[in-house]
Amino acid sequence: MRIGIVGLGLIGGSLALDLRSRGFEVYGVDLEERTCQIAIEIGAVDLASISPNFLSTADIIFICTPLDAITPTLKQLIPHLSPETIITDVGSVKTPIVQECSQLWTSFVGGHPMAGTAEQGIEAAKPDLFLGASYVLTPTETTPSIASQRVEEIAQLIGANVLMCSPEAHDQAVAWISHLPVMISASLIDACLHETDSNILQLAQQLASSGFCDTSRVGGGNPQLGVMMARDNRKALLRSLFEYRHSLNQLIEVIEKEDWERLEQILTSTQQTRTKFC
Amino acid sequence: MRIGIVGLGLIGGSLALDLRSRGFEVYGVDLEERTCQIAIEIGAVDLASISPNFLSTADIIFICTPLDAITPTLKQLIPHLSPETIITDVGSVKTPIVQECSQLWTSFVGGHPMAGTAEQGIEAAKPDLFLGASYVLTPTETTPSIASQRVEEIAQLIGANVLMCSPEAHDQAVAWISHLPVMISASLIDACLHETDSNILQLAQQLASSGFCDTSRVGGGNPQLGVMMARDNRKALLRSLFEYRHSLNQLIEVIEKEDWERLEQILTSTQQTRTKFC
Repeated sequence: MRIGIVGLGLIGGSLALDLRSRGFEVYGVDLEERTCQIAIEIGAVDLASISPNFLSTADIIFICTPLDAITPTLKQLIPHLSPETIITDVGSVKTPIVQECSQLWTSFVGGHPMAGTAEQGIEAAKPDLFLGASYVLTPTETTPSIASQRVEEIAQLIGANVLMCSPEAHDQAVAWISHLPVMISASLIDACLHETDSNILQLAQQLASSGFCDTSRVGGGNPQLGVMMARDNRKALLRSLFEYRHSLNQLIEVIEKEDWERLEQILTSTQQTRTKFC
Repeated sequence: MRIGIVGLGLIGGSLALDLRSRGFEVYGVDLEERTCQIAIEIGAVDLASISPNFLSTADIIFICTPLDAITPTLKQLIPHLSPETIITDVGSVKTPIVQECSQLWTSFVGGHPMAGTAEQGIEAAKPDLFLGASYVLTPTETTPSIASQRVEEIAQLIGANVLMCSPEAHDQAVAWISHLPVMISASLIDACLHETDSNILQLAQQLASSGFCDTSRVGGGNPQLGVMMARDNRKALLRSLFEYRHSLNQLIEVIEKEDWERLEQILTSTQQTRTKFC
């Protein structure tokens, strides 16, 4: 089987390494000539080019570009494809991508491998990045079952745990567990900045330890990534944020009323619930 | 110098171990006969008793009981003390303790060694627990300087970094970096519970990884400890919670308005600010 990978960054490059090591013929495409060269040098691909023309013989193509570029990339590919080609992507938000791409190409399967590192680019690509990671696939009613089966088999082959759900369920679930934590964690740091007594602020900075640092970690991450989450998954994120504000208001009210019995009930419930997530 | 320690739990027991290893004569008092026995067996104290009578010859006494018991313990000690005895405590909230205890005993110095482990009790006591930890002292205008100097010297001797501030500044600073994170982290878990679509909730539980787990960690901790924080430091915690709600509302508004430039400014500021804390 011949596999095409468009976008040879961390995800595309790592996927290429894994697939080639499992005996597939892997063709890579990237906007940068230099990236194509590196992909060949590290043995991630058999061939690489800045032009997508030579993907016409691929059986499956993984679009591993940034989110914004997924639909434009598909449009660019279409004139070169044979009608049986299966296309999948690795974008972190699924509803808009799947809506657009399914209309453009019947055998399109939305995908989201939930793996990554702090680094980016082909230089950060490494084998077994997806080993043990969740890999969400979001086929719709119109997706041919053979297409989602093929992508599922490949994801399993590289050691990922495949989960199937609707694009909407995916986006709401990642809003809860990934995008909402970033926003509430950022709000914690932002709130501290509003402490008007500079002695207290300085003392807080000196005394901060693991509790503060863990809770604020994802809120101190890459700002561009945070903006992308909010922009691309705005509706689901806002739904989670409204629910969160409701929970916060309830907690504030309980503390204002000094209802310590109710507070203990809430904290007992959160202690128990967390074990289902972590 | 002779040192008395009332309350031989994790903090009192660890303090006793450190002080005795540095050549002090250490007398321990605990409500439980068994705890006194263990303290003697592990070499934490020279003598231990369930009665405070024999602390009359101590130069400095550390009250290491739970917060509720600090003032009652001081009242119980007073009839047995010589007037030069310096008393300090290790309670995690300082304003009410210092107000009450300073009126009862002139040479009282509020203290808060910020060290701990997940375990509790004399069995968890260990040497060097305070090495490199912050140790806040909160002397007031009426505290004799010789008293705070003595406690400071001892804290430095066990390897802690001593910080001096007012009881009120301490309480507000720990509200920011310790008590507020617990409440916003608990609200995250609580909010997820309000997801009405059970498929999404189940998917979120399967997909949760380090981002969610770090942000929710302190919100999934000991419920009784969370209630104590809110009850004993209610005023400072509410002040931080109101400021936090303000920051959250601002972030929600920015996302509703799709003001991505402003969101990037906020997230850039939180990324930079966090490095001052962590």
